[in-house]
Amino acid sequence: MKAYKPKNRLTAKAYVDGVLSGDRVILSRAITVVESNLESDKVLAKTIIQEILPHSGNSIRIGITGVPGVGKSTFIEAFGKYLIKLGHKVAILSIDPSSQRSKGSILGDKTRMEQLSGMEEAYIRPSASGETLGGVANKTGESMLLCEAAGYDVILIETVGVGQSETAVHGMTDFFLLLMLAGAGDELQGIKKGIMEMADMVVINKADADNVQKSERARVQYQNALHLFPLAESGWSPVVTKASSVENTGIERVWEEIMKYKELVTTNGYFENNRNHQKIKWLYNNINDELKRLFYNSKDVESKLSLLKEDIISSKVSPVEAAQQIIETFKKSFKP
Amino acid sequence: MKAYKPKNRLTAKAYVDGVLSGDRVILSRAITVVESNLESDKVLAKTIIQEILPHSGNSIRIGITGVPGVGKSTFIEAFGKYLIKLGHKVAILSIDPSSQRSKGSILGDKTRMEQLSGMEEAYIRPSASGETLGGVANKTGESMLLCEAAGYDVILIETVGVGQSETAVHGMTDFFLLLMLAGAGDELQGIKKGIMEMADMVVINKADADNVQKSERARVQYQNALHLFPLAESGWSPVVTKASSVENTGIERVWEEIMKYKELVTTNGYFENNRNHQKIKWLYNNINDELKRLFYNSKDVESKLSLLKEDIISSKVSPVEAAQQIIETFKKSFKP
Repeated sequence: MKAYKPKNRLTAKAYVDGVLSGDRVILSRAITVVESNLESDKVLAKTIIQEILPHSGNSIRIGITGVPGVGKSTFIEAFGKYLIKLGHKVAILSIDPSSQRSKGSILGDKTRMEQLSGMEEAYIRPSASGETLGGVANKTGESMLLCEAAGYDVILIETVGVGQSETAVHGMTDFFLLLMLAGAGDELQGIKKGIMEMADMVVINKADADNVQKSERARVQYQNALHLFPLAESGWSPVVTKASSVENTGIERVWEEIMKYKELVTTNGYFENNRNHQKIKWLYNNINDELKRLFYNSKDVESKLSLLKEDIISSKVSPVEAAQQIIETFKKSFKP
Repeated sequence: MKAYKPKNRLTAKAYVDGVLSGDRVILSRAITVVESNLESDKVLAKTIIQEILPHSGNSIRIGITGVPGVGKSTFIEAFGKYLIKLGHKVAILSIDPSSQRSKGSILGDKTRMEQLSGMEEAYIRPSASGETLGGVANKTGESMLLCEAAGYDVILIETVGVGQSETAVHGMTDFFLLLMLAGAGDELQGIKKGIMEMADMVVINKADADNVQKSERARVQYQNALHLFPLAESGWSPVVTKASSVENTGIERVWEEIMKYKELVTTNGYFENNRNHQKIKWLYNNINDELKRLFYNSKDVESKLSLLKEDIISSKVSPVEAAQQIIETFKKSFKP
C-alpha cells in the first residue's frame, strides 16, 4: 500500500477520450496506470476501465504460444505485417510470468519485431511483471480491453509454451495458436500435452530450406495426434499447417483458417457463449485470489497458522481439525 | 446440517480403545463415523481422530492406480496375500470419485478380492462417496490414520487412473505404483502423462501366456520414457517391471523395490520430509475448501453474485471490479 502518487497522471476523462480516439501515446499511458501497483492508480484504473468497457470486445483475440526458439517474434512480425496490409489494426501483448521484465526489456521487445514496431497500425506491449499469474492475467486482460477500445481489431496475446500462462491466455482469447518445430525424434516431446489439447491450430514454423520435408512429416504426425483428442466444444477440428516467416509462406493460410473458425463459431453461437463464459471465469478467478489474499493477509490467521503447523507436524492435531480452527479464527477477526 | 443422531453409536473412548486393540468391527464402525455427514458424527469423529493421532503413521503407504481393466483387484489380491505371508497386516482403501457407491457395491468390492477379504490380516474398505474430491480425500486420509492406529503396517490406497483422484492419492502416500498393460500401438496413450510423472514404479500387469514378449517390449519402452523425466525429489529413479497376478510372478519384485525405496528415503530424510509436507498440504487444501464454502454459502454473497454476473455479461462492470465489490459484501456480512 504505497502512498506515493505520481505527478504526471492525467484525469480519468483525458485517458478515456485519448484511448477512444485511438491515441497511441495515451493508450500506453493508460496501460501503465492499469499495470501500476500504486493505490492511487488503482482507483484511476478502475474508473478508466469502467468507462471504456462498453467500447471493448470488437476484435478477434488470438493466443499464440510456443517454446523459446520456435520463432514466435519473426512469425508475429510476418503475421502482423500481413494483417496490416489487409487493413487491420493489430495489438500485440505478451505474457511471460517467468521473467521479471524491466524497462530495458520493453525496448528489447520492440527490437524483436523491428518492422512491425515502426508501423502506425501496430501496437506492441509486453506485459507488466506481476507477483502472481492471476495478477498478470488481470493486467493483460484489462490492457486488451483498452487496445480494443482504441480500435485495434486483432489482438495477439503471446506467451511462452512452458507453463501455466498458456491456460491464462487460452482463458482470455477466441483462438489459440501453437507454434512448433519439426524436431528430431518424438514430435510430441517439446510441449506439454495439455497445451496441445487447447490448440485450435498448430503451425509448424521454420518450414523452409532443408527443413521442408521434415516439417511436412511433422505436420502429418501432429494432425494424426490431434485426431486422438475429443472434438472441441467449439465444433472446430484443429488444423495443422506449415509456415516460414523467412520465406513468408503459410502466413495467409493461418489467417484464412482463423476467419473460417470465426465464421463457424459466430454461426453456431460458441463465440458469444465462450466470451461470456470467459468473463465469468475471470470473475471467479479474481474472487478466489482476493479471498485468499484477505484470508492469508490477516494477522490473526497468520499467527494461528504458524502455531497449528507445529502441532500438525508433531501429530498433536489433525489437518482437518486445524483447518476448522483457523476458519473460526478468521471469522472472529471481523467481529469488533 | 441434519439433526438426526444415530442411536447405535458408541462412546468416543470405546471407538478409540477398540481401534487401538485392533478390533476390526470397531475399526469399521469408526470409519463409518469418520465418513458420516451427520453433524453429531462430525464431533464424535473429531474426538476419535484426535485420540488416535499419536498412534498413526507407523506404516508404508502405497498408492496404486491404473485404468479400468488393468487388473488392479487381482494384482492387489496377489500382492496382499504375499505381504500377509511375510507377516504384515494390510489395509486396502479405495477412492473412486466417479462412482457414487452404495452399500451394495461395498459387498461387490469385497467379492473382487475373494481370498484376501477372508483373511484376518487384511482389511478392505472402499471409500465413502463424497460430493467433492477434497471431501473424499479427507475421509480416506482419516480412515488411513485409523487403520494405522489399528496396527495395519501396509496401507494400499487404490484409485482409477483416469482423473484428479491420482493427485489426491499421490498426496497422501509414500510410494506411488502405476499398473499398465502392454497395449497395441502407442504405449503412452492409455494414461495421462501427469500420472506417469508421479509414478515411483510402473508394473506391466498381465505379463503372462501370449503376452510375455509384448510386455517386455512395453517394459523397455516405459523405462525409456521415464528416463525423460527429471529426477524426482526423493532421489529415486522409477522402476518398470512386469507382473502376472494369475501366474503369481513379479509380485515379490514389487515389494523388494518398495523396500529399497523405503531404505533410500529413510536414509536421505525424504520420507519424513515428504510426510510433513503432505500434512501441511492437507491443511492448506482443507483451509481453501472451507474458506470457499464459507464464502459461497453466504446468502449476501450469493445474491450479490447473481446481480454482478448479469452486469458483467452486459459489460456494465469489469470482472476485476466485480470481484472487489463482492469481497466487500462478504466482509460486511460479518459485521453485526
